[in-house]
Amino acid sequence: MARVLLTGFHPFGGSVVNPSWQAVSLVAADPPPGLTVSTARLSCAFGTALEELRAAVDRADPEVVVCVGEAGGRPGVTVERVAINVNDARIPDEAGQQPLDGPVVEGGPVAYFATLPIKACVAAVRAAGIPASVSQTAGTFVCNHVFYGLAHLIATERPALRGGFVHVPYAPEQVVDRPEPSLPAATVAEALRAIVTTAVSTETDVRSAEGAIH
Amino acid sequence: MARVLLTGFHPFGGSVVNPSWQAVSLVAADPPPGLTVSTARLSCAFGTALEELRAAVDRADPEVVVCVGEAGGRPGVTVERVAINVNDARIPDEAGQQPLDGPVVEGGPVAYFATLPIKACVAAVRAAGIPASVSQTAGTFVCNHVFYGLAHLIATERPALRGGFVHVPYAPEQVVDRPEPSLPAATVAEALRAIVTTAVSTETDVRSAEGAIH
Amino acid sequence: MARVLLTGFHPFGGSVVNPSWQAVSLVAADPPPGLTVSTARLSCAFGTALEELRAAVDRADPEVVVCVGEAGGRPGVTVERVAINVNDARIPDEAGQQPLDGPVVEGGPVAYFATLPIKACVAAVRAAGIPASVSQTAGTFVCNHVFYGLAHLIATERPALRGGFVHVPYAPEQVVDRPEPSLPAATVAEALRAIVTTAVSTETDVRSAEGAIH
Amino acid sequence: MARVLLTGFHPFGGSVVNPSWQAVSLVAADPPPGLTVSTARLSCAFGTALEELRAAVDRADPEVVVCVGEAGGRPGVTVERVAINVNDARIPDEAGQQPLDGPVVEGGPVAYFATLPIKACVAAVRAAGIPASVSQTAGTFVCNHVFYGLAHLIATERPALRGGFVHVPYAPEQVVDRPEPSLPAATVAEALRAIVTTAVSTETDVRSAEGAIH
Repeated sequence: MARVLLTGFHPFGGSVVNPSWQAVSLVAADPPPGLTVSTARLSCAFGTALEELRAAVDRADPEVVVCVGEAGGRPGVTVERVAINVNDARIPDEAGQQPLDGPVVEGGPVAYFATLPIKACVAAVRAAGIPASVSQTAGTFVCNHVFYGLAHLIATERPALRGGFVHVPYAPEQVVDRPEPSLPAATVAEALRAIVTTAVSTETDVRSAEGAIH
Repeated sequence: MARVLLTGFHPFGGSVVNPSWQAVSLVAADPPPGLTVSTARLSCAFGTALEELRAAVDRADPEVVVCVGEAGGRPGVTVERVAINVNDARIPDEAGQQPLDGPVVEGGPVAYFATLPIKACVAAVRAAGIPASVSQTAGTFVCNHVFYGLAHLIATERPALRGGFVHVPYAPEQVVDRPEPSLPAATVAEALRAIVTTAVSTETDVRSAEGAIH
Repeated sequence: MARVLLTGFHPFGGSVVNPSWQAVSLVAADPPPGLTVSTARLSCAFGTALEELRAAVDRADPEVVVCVGEAGGRPGVTVERVAINVNDARIPDEAGQQPLDGPVVEGGPVAYFATLPIKACVAAVRAAGIPASVSQTAGTFVCNHVFYGLAHLIATERPALRGGFVHVPYAPEQVVDRPEPSLPAATVAEALRAIVTTAVSTETDVRSAEGAIH
Repeated sequence: MARVLLTGFHPFGGSVVNPSWQAVSLVAADPPPGLTVSTARLSCAFGTALEELRAAVDRADPEVVVCVGEAGGRPGVTVERVAINVNDARIPDEAGQQPLDGPVVEGGPVAYFATLPIKACVAAVRAAGIPASVSQTAGTFVCNHVFYGLAHLIATERPALRGGFVHVPYAPEQVVDRPEPSLPAATVAEALRAIVTTAVSTETDVRSAEGAIH
């Protein structure tokens, strides 16, 4: 049984739910065949989230980690390509911190690529009938912070671990009166099942055009 | 048992599914308590669609008719406010017709309002946790054509009938590799159940701000 | 010299400028050859705006009236096709009024079509290198209110007058820190010159596909 | 007189103009006070564009280089934060090449940050009344390729040089019949003047919240 760690986030920005945690919980309750799925719910707070992530990795000793966060406004599930070494918060995090332009890791490289087969993951989600794409930016808030921290942990301490970040749309109940795209938690959970199954079983990523013109 | 007629459309524009028919079928297979739900699948063709609608109304003798169509690009379920007396086709319909600026009904009024309680319907969909809003335009293609034809039928021949039009988003499987909003058929069906239940049971629409600045 | 009346609006909703008035002023300062251009700046208030419009029409005795309003979020200049008999305000107007679902004119028809050659106007704007399209809805706020009131005035009292409504994007200076489309006042003024020149000189509108699928 | 090199691109993807070159040409024809502005028009082709850029840098020996490209769909001027070491082409370039997932520079770091004061540049554009923001991704096509190549040149051979990349919206004439945001070349040129003036005169970037949630 391959061991997978999935993380989601606490609600933030006034929402009562966070679709990342909704979906992660559904996957844990009904994991894909052959996988042992652990979960952790991270605080939406710089620093704290990374401590929680490290503790969860130590506890679960996974082969694959997929961190999941909300990307309100995106219509499909997006698999992130790259984490950058910047904390630049447009709004305060849930601890009231608002870092501007400092690094995630002092002295760390400018960026890390995901060590998941991101294109194979996108293809698997689409094969399940769910919109998906590669994203070229995870932003500069707590999601990117967690993604960079995970990648740095892998690069410096756990070379056998593979990991990445997936952004998911709003849940429908978050936007009942706003013109924003959304997908139900059950749909997003199905996408995550496809992603973790693919991540565990794929050695070499597929070659396909998933870039962005700009 | 109140009698409701729901209509959807055949696929068009190269799609293999039409989310309107997917959702309507699900409602018919599992109708809301107290309602008898008939369905009709209309051609996406000027003229023909209205003949099919009239035949379905004659057959079902409903108290409420809700016609449903795809509005690719809209993120939520929209209840249409007004049908206008124009056929102005940006693309050919499935019969190859492309009328430009002629009327739906020669000599008919410029427009009809829906005779559904549109704001109560929107409120009911939102209460089910699904994004919804009032739309101020059903376009100028076959959807508006059907909506206007239905309203004209009600105005001129069936004053006791109430009817309107609901636009629904793409289904996820239609847009797996495109950045377009979507909702699964099961979610849209739940929205339609809320709409028909509300339409049958609501005499006077609620007053709420669902207008558009422009 | 053909007489044209152009109207714009006072700023509303917290903006310090209204791009409709900016552009209208530029046209009046440098009118197209052969046209006498009068202007009026309307209040963004239900009722009052229509009184001001009527007074301006009486004063200018124009052959063509084009009312212009801001449509924040639209990327191009849009020529409106239809005005509907509804006041349904999402936000209060500048007088603090927020009508919900009452008519513009008690007992008036559900809608009026513009009496401008809307497709020829769109073609003329595009020929000037500026994005333009036909719009199927002017909303349900003061813009639609003015458009309907103008159309009703034409239909009931001034059959020789022709008139319509044009929505214009934000001015760049309104959205310097928001991801919203905009066009400079000079560009919008050029579009309005093309529209009024076309409206005055075109008897029969062109036939072209400018409809909307939904 | 400080020496600035501005680059734009040849048209691509079927367009007859490229707004980056339009704007760069206007700046060269009417440069800001105190600056000597050189220009180069780069091919929209992997590899070739970087050779042309290197030649232009050698020729102009500038203190600041700002490469400019089209970002169709973006409503404002965006100053790029980071270039990544990936060529991943969604469409072929003008030479027919379509690299998938190879690096820009074999063995180069995952990413480089711009060495311009990006936030001061954004603030200067806004102060000129023009929409602007920091962008967290320059894509994975030729624009990112040029930006990465420039940053690599600076890092490895020209440490005194400062450089970055600016993405600009469509020109209005490119999208006359499409619902896409645009800004006229004169407006974009004014933004570029603000950027190069700021880049030359600003030692330390300002601290301001220009990050992205995702």
